This record gives sequence, structure tokens and C-alpha cells, in this order.
Amino acid sequence: MTYCVGLMLDKGLVLMSDTRTNSGVDNISVFRKMVSWSVPGERIITLMTAGNLATTQSVISRLEERSKAPEDRQNSLMELSTMFQVACEVGRLLRETIAETQEDNGPKGSGRFTASIILAGQIKGMEPRLFMIYPEGNFIEASFDTPFFQIGETKYGRPILIRGYDRDMSFEDAVKLLMVSFDSTLKANLSVGLPLDLLVLERDRFSPSHERRIEVTDPYFTEISSSWSDALRSAFQSLPDYSFDQVGSST
Amino acid sequence: MTYCVGLMLDKGLVLMSDTRTNSGVDNISVFRKMVSWSVPGERIITLMTAGNLATTQSVISRLEERSKAPEDRQNSLMELSTMFQVACEVGRLLRETIAETQEDNGPKGSGRFTASIILAGQIKGMEPRLFMIYPEGNFIEASFDTPFFQIGETKYGRPILIRGYDRDMSFEDAVKLLMVSFDSTLKANLSVGLPLDLLVLERDRFSPSHERRIEVTDPYFTEISSSWSDALRSAFQSLPDYSFDQVGSST
Repeated sequence: MTYCVGLMLDKGLVLMSDTRTNSGVDNISVFRKMVSWSVPGERIITLMTAGNLATTQSVISRLEERSKAPEDRQNSLMELSTMFQVACEVGRLLRETIAETQEDNGPKGSGRFTASIILAGQIKGMEPRLFMIYPEGNFIEASFDTPFFQIGETKYGRPILIRGYDRDMSFEDAVKLLMVSFDSTLKANLSVGLPLDLLVLERDRFSPSHERRIEVTDPYFTEISSSWSDALRSAFQSLPDYSFDQVGSST
Repeated sequence: MTYCVGLMLDKGLVLMSDTRTNSGVDNISVFRKMVSWSVPGERIITLMTAGNLATTQSVISRLEERSKAPEDRQNSLMELSTMFQVACEVGRLLRETIAETQEDNGPKGSGRFTASIILAGQIKGMEPRLFMIYPEGNFIEASFDTPFFQIGETKYGRPILIRGYDRDMSFEDAVKLLMVSFDSTLKANLSVGLPLDLLVLERDRFSPSHERRIEVTDPYFTEISSSWSDALRSAFQSLPDYSFDQVGSST
């Protein structure tokens, strides 16, 4: 499994992904699921991937044309003129990659090779954009009605995102919110694991304004994880008490 | 879908279930998923069900021998001498019910008619017991290492249970905790819906010490739902701030 979240804020985009892949609980590895390309000052494009690792790595490799000699490669993501075109291209490659593998493996393979992708980025002269691309190759775009996308193991970390998100929050608060959401997921599901990758894309900057890997020993993440337990307990205690006597009435 | 939780506390057992069933989003109904039988002073046994409604209703009907005339019926749950025997009997009926329906509907029906059951109760002279019964008819029993079971749409409401549970908490706090867990689930998944059924089984009491339906208009639940948003935001604000400057260090 996997957990990746892309948040759209007024100030820009904040992305976080875990790095655990597994094929059974006895076969876990660390793989980067966030890939970024930029033309400084002109565009930045980031993908986060969930699903079959061979599929998602193949999509990335095709985007970078790794089948060709380095000097012949042309990453089309660097040349397409809109984020919509980028989403179409990534969707097409994703759909084709899945279709080829499933065909090679007969109908029994159906469903085994699927993947989903969150696409985020901005091209100069246009707004920052956030897309969710499905295995079928089609996609949806975030708006401030639905300002974030999650892929992978999405449920444990969703309630805090729903309650904590605010479109005008600072990047710092957004990172804190994502860390809480990831911590809830990590505590509940072994198939999501540290380290995490974090990327902040400030509007009109066209290069990462903040990018780092949050390791297992990261002191801030460790502090968030332990403080959140205490903070949640305090929050819980602050709620009005239930009373068996005054059934149906608030205290 | 469904959401049911059974909590094991030092003081006894607390059970909560939703009442929404659906067959597509355009076909939703309210059905009770919690059923209780008791011999006052001697035993109380409660089931909560998730899964195919025809299957779970059939299991309940078979337990109560509704195929017989009322005067000939013998609810075996009222006579078995241990909760373990009760779990075996419920498991057997569940497995048989699923197997019959799947057989009648050919191999294509496989998986469509499954259900899971949480069994809770106490028989005089023995401890309160909490079981999770699988569609295969086998089951596991809760202990204070894993003191609660969830069935149905379990993920959204799990993080707060993990953080908020305490085996020596009061019944009132346990009800509050369950309400928060249900509220998180209700906010995230349309297939779980109010009203909720609540049952508190105090140790050695052998009759419900508190039992009620929490309706859509319930003032306490409404207050919890709105206060929890505020409390979570305060909890979130109370966490140490992330800083882009002091990367990797806590503030």
C-alpha cells in the first residue's frame, strides 16, 4: 500500500508521500513515490504514485523516454503547454502501461497491475493545478470545493484533513496537518511507512520552495506523533460529558 | 455499509451500531443491526451485524427459530452454558447461511452474501466476553491487548479509538469516545448513517444498564459533532509549529 496526499492552498500546493512498498508483509522495501521535474522559472511538475510498482515505475520511465539514449530523450512533460495536456499525457501512458501488462498476463491479471497518480504543478502564466489520474487514464481536477486528493490507504488520515484543512492556511500549518494525517495512517496500517517525502510548491515560484525527506528519526515528526496523542486526549476531555441520567439532553 | 464497534472495559462492555443499509446510494434504509437477548440476572447476549442484510437477518431468525410456531421455539443462545459455545453456534449458523445462498446462486454469487458479527455478552459465573465472528464461522476473542472490535466501515473511526481508549475509562467516557468515532465515520462515508443504537452492559448486571437510540436530532450527538471540530482545531493549534528554517529540528 501507499499513502500520498496533495493539498491545494491559496499560496500553492503541498505534497506528501510515504515510501513503503510491499508484496506481502514479509517483503517490504523503500521506494520513492514522488517524482518532480522543473524548468526553473517556467514550470514545475510533480507526480505521486500508488499501486503496482512496476506499473508506476514504467510510467515514469516512459515519461523520461529512458528507452532511448540519454541524448535523444525528450521529456514531453517539459514541453506540453498546459497542465491539462500534461494530465492527458500521463493518463494515456498510465492506461497503456496497465493494458499491456494485463494483456501479457491474460484475463487473470485483471486488476493486479493498476495504479493511480496525483499530478501537481504549475506552468508560467497559469494557475497551480492538482489532478487525480485514474488507472483508466481519465482524471479529475481539484477545486476549492474538493481541495485535496489522497491515493492509497486514504481512510485513516481523512477525518483530520476534512476538519483541519483551510485554504488560507500557511505552508507550515499544512505540513503539520499532513504529518498528523500521515501519523494516524502509520499507526493503523503497516503497509504505509516512513520515511516520508515532502514537497512545497509556492505559487509562481516554479521551483520547490521546500523539499525534504522525513526520516524515521526526524525529531519534529516524532514530537508531532507523541504530542498528537496528548492533544487528542485533551480535546476529547474538553468535549461535554455524556450523562446516563439526562438521556438525550446535552450537559 | 455499516459501522459497529464493541469496546471491552474493566467495568463491562459498550456497544454501538449505525442503522443504515444500502443497495446503491439510491436505495438506503434504516435497519436495526444490534439485537439483544437476556435472561435477567443470568445472562445477556448481544449481536451486531455487518454485511449482506438478508444473511444477517436470516442468522437472527434461525437463532430465534422463527421457522417454528412461537410455542415450539427454543433460542439456543438462552441455554448454551458458555459464551464460547454461543460464539460457536452463531458462527455455525452464519457459515451455513452464507453457504446456502451462495450455492443457490452458483459460483458467481461468491462473496456477495458474506457478513461478519460482533458478539458480546456475559453468562453468570463467567467474565464478560467480546468476540468477532467471521463469515467462515470461525472467530477471535478480544483481550486487553486488543480490547475492541469494529466491523463494516472501520477505518475512518479507528485512529481516535486507538488514541482515546483506556480500559479503566468510565462508561460515560466510552460512549463519548464512540460518538466521536462514529461522527468521524459519518462525516466521511455516506453508507454509514444515523440513528445509532447504543447499549451498555455493566459487568455482573445481566441486563442492559443503558440502552437507547441516538436519533438524527439528538442534542448531545449534535453538540459532540460540532464541538469536536473546534476541539480538533485547538488540539492541532497546540502542536509545535513546523518551521522551514530549522529543518528536521523541533521548535
